Amino acid sequence: MISIDSLLDFFLETREYSEKICEPLEIEDYVVQPIVDVSPPKWHLGHTTWFFEAFILVPYAKNYQLFNSDFSFVFNSYYETIGKRVVRADRGNLSRPSVKKVYEYRKYVTDGIKTFFANDQSKELHDLLEIGIHHEKQHQELLLTDIKYILGNNPLLPFYSEQLGEHPIEEHQQDWITVDEGIYEIGHNSDAFCYDNELGGHKVYLHNFEISNKLVTNQEFINFIKDSGYKRFELWHAEGWDWLNQNNIACPMYWHKIDGEWHHYTYTGLQKIDLSAPLCHISYFEAFAFAQWKGCRLPTEFEWEVANLYFPWGKRWEWTESAYLPYPNYKKADGALGEYNGKFMVNQKVLRGGSIATPRKHTRPTYRNFFQPNLRWQFTGLRLAK
Amino acid sequence: MISIDSLLDFFLETREYSEKICEPLEIEDYVVQPIVDVSPPKWHLGHTTWFFEAFILVPYAKNYQLFNSDFSFVFNSYYETIGKRVVRADRGNLSRPSVKKVYEYRKYVTDGIKTFFANDQSKELHDLLEIGIHHEKQHQELLLTDIKYILGNNPLLPFYSEQLGEHPIEEHQQDWITVDEGIYEIGHNSDAFCYDNELGGHKVYLHNFEISNKLVTNQEFINFIKDSGYKRFELWHAEGWDWLNQNNIACPMYWHKIDGEWHHYTYTGLQKIDLSAPLCHISYFEAFAFAQWKGCRLPTEFEWEVANLYFPWGKRWEWTESAYLPYPNYKKADGALGEYNGKFMVNQKVLRGGSIATPRKHTRPTYRNFFQPNLRWQFTGLRLAK
Amino acid sequence: MISIDSLLDFFLETREYSEKICEPLEIEDYVVQPIVDVSPPKWHLGHTTWFFEAFILVPYAKNYQLFNSDFSFVFNSYYETIGKRVVRADRGNLSRPSVKKVYEYRKYVTDGIKTFFANDQSKELHDLLEIGIHHEKQHQELLLTDIKYILGNNPLLPFYSEQLGEHPIEEHQQDWITVDEGIYEIGHNSDAFCYDNELGGHKVYLHNFEISNKLVTNQEFINFIKDSGYKRFELWHAEGWDWLNQNNIACPMYWHKIDGEWHHYTYTGLQKIDLSAPLCHISYFEAFAFAQWKGCRLPTEFEWEVANLYFPWGKRWEWTESAYLPYPNYKKADGALGEYNGKFMVNQKVLRGGSIATPRKHTRPTYRNFFQPNLRWQFTGLRLAK
Amino acid sequence: MISIDSLLDFFLETREYSEKICEPLEIEDYVVQPIVDVSPPKWHLGHTTWFFEAFILVPYAKNYQLFNSDFSFVFNSYYETIGKRVVRADRGNLSRPSVKKVYEYRKYVTDGIKTFFANDQSKELHDLLEIGIHHEKQHQELLLTDIKYILGNNPLLPFYSEQLGEHPIEEHQQDWITVDEGIYEIGHNSDAFCYDNELGGHKVYLHNFEISNKLVTNQEFINFIKDSGYKRFELWHAEGWDWLNQNNIACPMYWHKIDGEWHHYTYTGLQKIDLSAPLCHISYFEAFAFAQWKGCRLPTEFEWEVANLYFPWGKRWEWTESAYLPYPNYKKADGALGEYNGKFMVNQKVLRGGSIATPRKHTRPTYRNFFQPNLRWQFTGLRLAK
Repeated sequence: MISIDSLLDFFLETREYSEKICEPLEIEDYVVQPIVDVSPPKWHLGHTTWFFEAFILVPYAKNYQLFNSDFSFVFNSYYETIGKRVVRADRGNLSRPSVKKVYEYRKYVTDGIKTFFANDQSKELHDLLEIGIHHEKQHQELLLTDIKYILGNNPLLPFYSEQLGEHPIEEHQQDWITVDEGIYEIGHNSDAFCYDNELGGHKVYLHNFEISNKLVTNQEFINFIKDSGYKRFELWHAEGWDWLNQNNIACPMYWHKIDGEWHHYTYTGLQKIDLSAPLCHISYFEAFAFAQWKGCRLPTEFEWEVANLYFPWGKRWEWTESAYLPYPNYKKADGALGEYNGKFMVNQKVLRGGSIATPRKHTRPTYRNFFQPNLRWQFTGLRLAK
Repeated sequence: MISIDSLLDFFLETREYSEKICEPLEIEDYVVQPIVDVSPPKWHLGHTTWFFEAFILVPYAKNYQLFNSDFSFVFNSYYETIGKRVVRADRGNLSRPSVKKVYEYRKYVTDGIKTFFANDQSKELHDLLEIGIHHEKQHQELLLTDIKYILGNNPLLPFYSEQLGEHPIEEHQQDWITVDEGIYEIGHNSDAFCYDNELGGHKVYLHNFEISNKLVTNQEFINFIKDSGYKRFELWHAEGWDWLNQNNIACPMYWHKIDGEWHHYTYTGLQKIDLSAPLCHISYFEAFAFAQWKGCRLPTEFEWEVANLYFPWGKRWEWTESAYLPYPNYKKADGALGEYNGKFMVNQKVLRGGSIATPRKHTRPTYRNFFQPNLRWQFTGLRLAK
Repeated sequence: MISIDSLLDFFLETREYSEKICEPLEIEDYVVQPIVDVSPPKWHLGHTTWFFEAFILVPYAKNYQLFNSDFSFVFNSYYETIGKRVVRADRGNLSRPSVKKVYEYRKYVTDGIKTFFANDQSKELHDLLEIGIHHEKQHQELLLTDIKYILGNNPLLPFYSEQLGEHPIEEHQQDWITVDEGIYEIGHNSDAFCYDNELGGHKVYLHNFEISNKLVTNQEFINFIKDSGYKRFELWHAEGWDWLNQNNIACPMYWHKIDGEWHHYTYTGLQKIDLSAPLCHISYFEAFAFAQWKGCRLPTEFEWEVANLYFPWGKRWEWTESAYLPYPNYKKADGALGEYNGKFMVNQKVLRGGSIATPRKHTRPTYRNFFQPNLRWQFTGLRLAK
Repeated sequence: MISIDSLLDFFLETREYSEKICEPLEIEDYVVQPIVDVSPPKWHLGHTTWFFEAFILVPYAKNYQLFNSDFSFVFNSYYETIGKRVVRADRGNLSRPSVKKVYEYRKYVTDGIKTFFANDQSKELHDLLEIGIHHEKQHQELLLTDIKYILGNNPLLPFYSEQLGEHPIEEHQQDWITVDEGIYEIGHNSDAFCYDNELGGHKVYLHNFEISNKLVTNQEFINFIKDSGYKRFELWHAEGWDWLNQNNIACPMYWHKIDGEWHHYTYTGLQKIDLSAPLCHISYFEAFAFAQWKGCRLPTEFEWEVANLYFPWGKRWEWTESAYLPYPNYKKADGALGEYNGKFMVNQKVLRGGSIATPRKHTRPTYRNFFQPNLRWQFTGLRLAK
């Protein structure tokens, strides 16, 4: 188990990184919520702070004074156990608390945690601190993708930063990795941190399969578009076909065709598509349709986990064919933290891997990300199997 | 393989049974569509007929004269391959064709099929006829449940028929069947008819589990209600909790509390709940919440299939924890019939078993039924596992 | 005042005419409700009957036995005073009571009224009977237009009847009638029947105006379409422009362009447009935009009432520029009948005249019809002023 | 006619006042749009600036360089003539341009106008400048009421400013002013500025009426609430009754009952209701229902205009019974300015008077304000007539 001193360093480094992500923003950028799936950056900064306050300082730190008693209402995300909250769609309607006040709140709680852990090191609280850190790391990824959405849907298409290389090329040749039929072990099985949804190590039986050593590229997807991929219903799920028609979808998110050439919005503004870079910002529906068109399929999350040693990953979250379901013997944690994962295990798809927006140390081969099949604002891509 | 003569007998018996189901109806009952999931009975009668016409007579019967060239538009359900169609939500807005005309259409096509198969016995057409028969059987179940919805949501709560014993009691004591860890074979593996989604026989690895030999009863579910089951968010999926609150759900479909006592609408009108009968008309969300409350879970579809020999089934369609996904090596059929199953394999849950509304010979241990997790108008129930 | 015997004759003739309108229908046509503004014919037949039962027989006829105690719930339209009711959008979801039962109900109540008025002739009840008759006449017009909608939106475009000459030509030359500035008397001022919204005779001051002696024709409206009338926002209200774009409106209701030529659905099926017939089935928004395009305007309801002696009318309900507002000193009736008109006096436009669907003796120069500005399923037309 | 020098002074004073209104705001407050009717303050600041740029500098100032060519898209409100624009509901989704950039834009255009009018004084441009000033004044009122909404719907209920006395008491006794039947002149008839909808001076005939010399007070409205005014459907329009039930309306906007006592949000935060102050923040529906309950009615806009000399006004915008319609001989201006008023003349109600948020010199006895009948975020009140 990681020592409390190392954990506090990890905590401080994590707290700092959230603020570093926001450095290039104008104050106005912290406030807006253009779609319900995106949260205002200041909400992320406040919510990750509230998590430490509500789950550690309030229940365990003697004489702890709340920074502001209204903040639980403002910054609770979905923990019914903890009480009432601003409905998600209203997050972008709140101009107050101001960004300045949110930063003060962050400092107040960060200091509170430091003071508290100088005196208390019980295992339970150590675990709560660790989950709080990983929770904030999850939100760092959302911060980055929500910022991209906020700026990328503004008609001025503003520059954000040059720090993130969003479109890293995989230089190697595409090839197929062959895996033999048999029984395999699935799930997290070390002492290191993981979420409850990765626990419940268990066996699965896999049949022979092949999985690509390379992500699908923009060039391949442009071929799909050229071959009328978005217009051939037989490639799509019925629900995907409805989604596509209701939303007039005809290309990945952030793509614009300008004078006959494909461009996309990036953190550095509008750019030409790099044909050899891995495809990004597609829904599960699009991933599935592309695979159908290729005569292939998406891997299951088990196939991906078994084969992950044999290919590089971490540039894109990769859609799998697996629905997000509990592992055998999955147990929800008690209390409010039991709401972290379990209650979302219906109507979502598992993604495996990680992306260029995933913070350091925040993914692993057993990590299970999950989203509704129509969502595209994460750095989502796809790898074929057959 | 079943002989063509036997198959034609099966065809005629099936055609007759659809009409028998409708015998107790007033003409008005054939027309309405109170919710989008329910179709008007005359639409079912026409659509099952159109299926034989569109997939057998039109492509294969020389000189076949369409009964009415507008009917393809009216009676196509979702086959994009075949052309445009009335949108699903509009089925109840069509007073024409009249019920009388639909019966004429049925006779015309039934006769056409008889004549045609007197002369043609090729394997492909034999298979098309068989799938058409099973398609009509599927719609017979929908006919029965749609009729229940149409009448059960009418303020006059009319009588339909005494033929169906909707609430058969399981007399035996509840007990747990134990199944050992190991590799099991899943999927259809005989010559008899099955749908494409049951093919692709394959192995799964199951861990030790126990499954109940008995369906959950009304009495058990009333205990859940009394224990505030509908008001405890920690028992529910987030999506289920939203569904429940948006729709003011506080009991199974068709239940009414009258003078402190639970009643429900049945085919014979309003009746008191029989406490020992198996629970019915619940969503997956309710099945899941009940299982949580019991400290149990729902079985997966694989556990159910492996254990099915050891318990009686067929009274309720049973919700499983499994998402509706393709089996390994699943292949869609070519052409329009490829739309039968594959395109629904997202955001649906598998149900196993069969119900008192399932026609004779229409289910089997490998049969995979599937619905969105909020739907309740089928005869859905639940069996616990742990 | 009309004698009670004459009134009973009028009553019986009215009751018969409602049923005569429905004679050409199939039973299925009585049931459906393709849009919320349209009611199923059997609902009209039941509702007009319920009106006599609820407002005369129940409160005044000793020992009156309700035909069916659930019918008040089913056939109440909007009288909050009388109790709960089926919400309007659900009328088409009710297959029961059956059409046969509704006709029995009609006979039962008609007989009840006859018996009752053989014994009672007080002024109040005489007035109630008279308003019930006029209420049924109003619904006869709706019956006719709702039937047209039900059949005209069916892909089979069925024939209804040859009895109604829907498209009567005005043979005379278009000319302008000049009316001089001054004070004019408005409102109903005889003993004959009228609605409460026509009472409150009062003076208005009108400035000089001119009003056309002829309705706008189909030919004139086709010229508007050809001149891009539906595409020039400057001719439209902001709300009309949104309505048009959201609903893809580019021609009057029931019009279809087939092989470059305008056709429309009529009671005898699909027909070529008669260019010289008066335009029909347009919204207020379209009437207004057309007038703008012509450099004219719509008359106010006062101008129309003052000038009505000088032009023929009765073929189309004519949109006016006037909002539906109470006349000075307007008083709502006491009790449930107070809900008849007054509570609709916001966000509606007044129409004057009458149409080919208006029953005999059911309109007059002071009659104020009213609809939301987007509605088109009545026989609505327009007359220019300047 | 006002001299160009005086007009430029008026212009500068107006430009300054808009910015003074925003002085107490945090940057975050400039950005949000909690409901579609409210616009972000920075949008108002930019839009009023764009108006001068688009209607004066772009068409008339030689060699004028646009500040930013994307701003027309961002800051156009509804002028279809001028081109595409951000849809209204998306105004709050735009973090850019930043507040700082909007202030730079304001300075750039203000300077541009000053330079331009140093050289040009043609009558047409003088009129355009004047309308631009009045346009900005209209937006100043919206700025104030939108700020109140933005802050008043924030759970922190922040303080804005003590400058506005929102709740001025009318000290005099309530009495009825009697006006005699006869012909009256309506509309604007001096050289001073007015909007096109006030022109078209004309005669109306009014019958004898009485109008209150005092606005309805909070105390009177609390009596209405206590007498179940919000629960008695017979007091309401059908549309008002639906609005009230769908939105759970049971008191004026900004009212909160705390420990049995009525409070409301004001620019200085949450305060107890002052019972003798004029009622505020009610819809037309509520004004109408209150008048019904009192056995009175709302005045028409003509009655109000005729009687306005005999009572004090200007504290509340007052709902009238009149629909917003064109005066006889109303003519829309040519070009884009023709969109200013005319296209809203349907489904809105006229308000007369002015409020504590109305800028100096911005209202007059003939001024016609107008809103949909459900809107409440303006300082709306009511005066009875009979």
